[in-house]
Amino acid sequence: MATIEGTPGYGRDHLPYGVVLVAGAPTPAVRIGDQALDLAAAEAAGLVDAGGVLRSATTLNPLLAAGPAVWRRVRARLLELFSDPAADATLEELLHPLAQVEPVLPIAVGDYVDFYSSEHHASNVGRIFRPDQEPLLPNWRHLPIGYHGRAGTVVVSGTPIVRPSGQRKPPSQESPSFGPSARLDIEAEVGFVVGAPSPLGAPVPVDRFADHVFGVVLVNDWSARDLQAWEYQPLGPFLGKSFATSVGAWITPLAALSEAWTDAPTQDPPALDYLRESDRRGLDLSLTVRWNDTVVTSPPFAGMYWTPAQQLAHLTVNGASLRTGDLYASGTVSGPRRDQVGSFLELSWGGAEPVTLADGSERTFLADGDTVTIEATAPASGGGRITLAEVTGAVTPARSG
Amino acid sequence: MATIEGTPGYGRDHLPYGVVLVAGAPTPAVRIGDQALDLAAAEAAGLVDAGGVLRSATTLNPLLAAGPAVWRRVRARLLELFSDPAADATLEELLHPLAQVEPVLPIAVGDYVDFYSSEHHASNVGRIFRPDQEPLLPNWRHLPIGYHGRAGTVVVSGTPIVRPSGQRKPPSQESPSFGPSARLDIEAEVGFVVGAPSPLGAPVPVDRFADHVFGVVLVNDWSARDLQAWEYQPLGPFLGKSFATSVGAWITPLAALSEAWTDAPTQDPPALDYLRESDRRGLDLSLTVRWNDTVVTSPPFAGMYWTPAQQLAHLTVNGASLRTGDLYASGTVSGPRRDQVGSFLELSWGGAEPVTLADGSERTFLADGDTVTIEATAPASGGGRITLAEVTGAVTPARSG
Repeated sequence: MATIEGTPGYGRDHLPYGVVLVAGAPTPAVRIGDQALDLAAAEAAGLVDAGGVLRSATTLNPLLAAGPAVWRRVRARLLELFSDPAADATLEELLHPLAQVEPVLPIAVGDYVDFYSSEHHASNVGRIFRPDQEPLLPNWRHLPIGYHGRAGTVVVSGTPIVRPSGQRKPPSQESPSFGPSARLDIEAEVGFVVGAPSPLGAPVPVDRFADHVFGVVLVNDWSARDLQAWEYQPLGPFLGKSFATSVGAWITPLAALSEAWTDAPTQDPPALDYLRESDRRGLDLSLTVRWNDTVVTSPPFAGMYWTPAQQLAHLTVNGASLRTGDLYASGTVSGPRRDQVGSFLELSWGGAEPVTLADGSERTFLADGDTVTIEATAPASGGGRITLAEVTGAVTPARSG
Repeated sequence: MATIEGTPGYGRDHLPYGVVLVAGAPTPAVRIGDQALDLAAAEAAGLVDAGGVLRSATTLNPLLAAGPAVWRRVRARLLELFSDPAADATLEELLHPLAQVEPVLPIAVGDYVDFYSSEHHASNVGRIFRPDQEPLLPNWRHLPIGYHGRAGTVVVSGTPIVRPSGQRKPPSQESPSFGPSARLDIEAEVGFVVGAPSPLGAPVPVDRFADHVFGVVLVNDWSARDLQAWEYQPLGPFLGKSFATSVGAWITPLAALSEAWTDAPTQDPPALDYLRESDRRGLDLSLTVRWNDTVVTSPPFAGMYWTPAQQLAHLTVNGASLRTGDLYASGTVSGPRRDQVGSFLELSWGGAEPVTLADGSERTFLADGDTVTIEATAPASGGGRITLAEVTGAVTPARSG
């Protein structure tokens, strides 16, 4: 490939994986520039070797299940192919412009877990909802708080988000009523996709993260704050979250993020042994959140208090098994400043301080017709930056009746 | 079949479905007496017609996905076969004694949701943990409280339960420590298995329960109360539950429970419209919980405040889709009396009142080596009773190190 054209950040240093519809059929693919290379056809043609799992795959799960050695072999071969001018003619037939192949959800999701690992986010939520108390609950600095979300409603970027209806009981009302959410929000998060499974009863040690995690996607954990506020005690969020969680269409493999690791914040108190890393590292991803045409906030992922390796170790320390396709997300990514928060709950401080968009309109929570797009970049090998696949979604009105 | 031998409650009026290992391969089956009829072989031989989905099935999901019309056709045909003496010789070859075919998890679980729908259980928990306050939280009578559990650790009855380790912070300690749970508990529940899926954005009306739900299994939602107590605020139970959830090996189809429906308790305040049933019915299942050799409690399912139809309507009212294999459980089934509670937390009143077993030993929570078996019966057509497949599990010691 003499030149790679298209959106910056999708060069040879990136090569994220997805699934696209080729002639109507879901097909595993790797993205380069604004093109998708059909990996099923590439393996059938003998160009790449994933042990045969790509040929008939309709999701990335078979590749993910194959484990780190196969992930390395496939990536090395793709780098070789994309750097070899002699391969251009062969590849040309297997490449599809992205505009012509619709991306679909790239994995069959096993379990979906959502953490709550930004100290700034958790503190902001505490200050908004419990202004008279310590913003962080006593357990927060001891373990990565998390819960299970609905795996069956994880959708690919671009899927319209229908405003959910449900029970709400604003403080002004005596009893709850039913209707469309009036406080529809986003949560800008980073998700981790499990490739290699682990058996029931075998915790994954904190330093074995890379043996299991295949890659990273951006996540928008859409949240209906009014539904959530009424339902969440004592068993946590349920319908306020379960209507939709959007993920980027292309999974960035950990191998493309080798230059993105950075020191993670020091923890005080020190974590218990099972959460203590020999080398404590976070990922230096710079997120932006665009609300219609306005970038309203730029959350920094590097400052997360609990790292992805700690989250995985915690998730499995009770013996819970991992399945290929399990997805766990960081929780809302918020930095210390108001223009770095990852939710509109924080951006509008509980709805009290409206935000003005570029067109002059004001917002607290999402209006019908609004579009939210989360993007991110990360340092790449060679000194450049890669662009994580965006996660976008437009809000459509609640169903009537 | 002139005679049906074996455990009472598995006659022609029952016919639950499962998956057993035949020559090492998972095979769909229907149970009659203490035998399993190989349904893959039966369909291959032209004896039953599920549209071909049983022949190569390794779980019940293809049958479940086929929908109510196929479920009715298959059951009618099985009843016909099991009532026809001329079919005996043919069936004989397809029947395996249960002792010779190991049952495995009968479904590939989609999402697992756990409700909290017994008023007695929720009130007991409130009294134990918040003795100075109203036992029920303000939302409890307005909606069926629930949350998502871990689908990947749903295991079949008989699977050993390794005592989980994790963080606990008893009130007597300043900071948390790591170690095996000291308050390992059960929750006796009834689970509902979704067959026919529903699309994203289409709530399932409360009166359409039987269009989607295939059948019923007993559930033991093992719970580490000390892990749960420390972790659950503000996002709900996580590692205190996610190590294992056991389900019965045989799914009782709704068709076998037609005589088991009974009036459900009147709700005050009346439920919102989307939760209001034209005919408000619960299931008259009588549960028993055996702790080693002692029946310690007998929870009645008929008195549950929120019905399975209300749970399904609530679960989907925000537009959440259903997938074949989704499992939702009732929450702990507790009746008004101490010998009717569905958890040892309640039985021992928070650990304060030990229980004496038949061998004279005392218990509050589970000891290593203990076995818990949950059983249930229900009224059947013809005036008899059917026996729901037991869910049993033995506690093994925590892993060392």
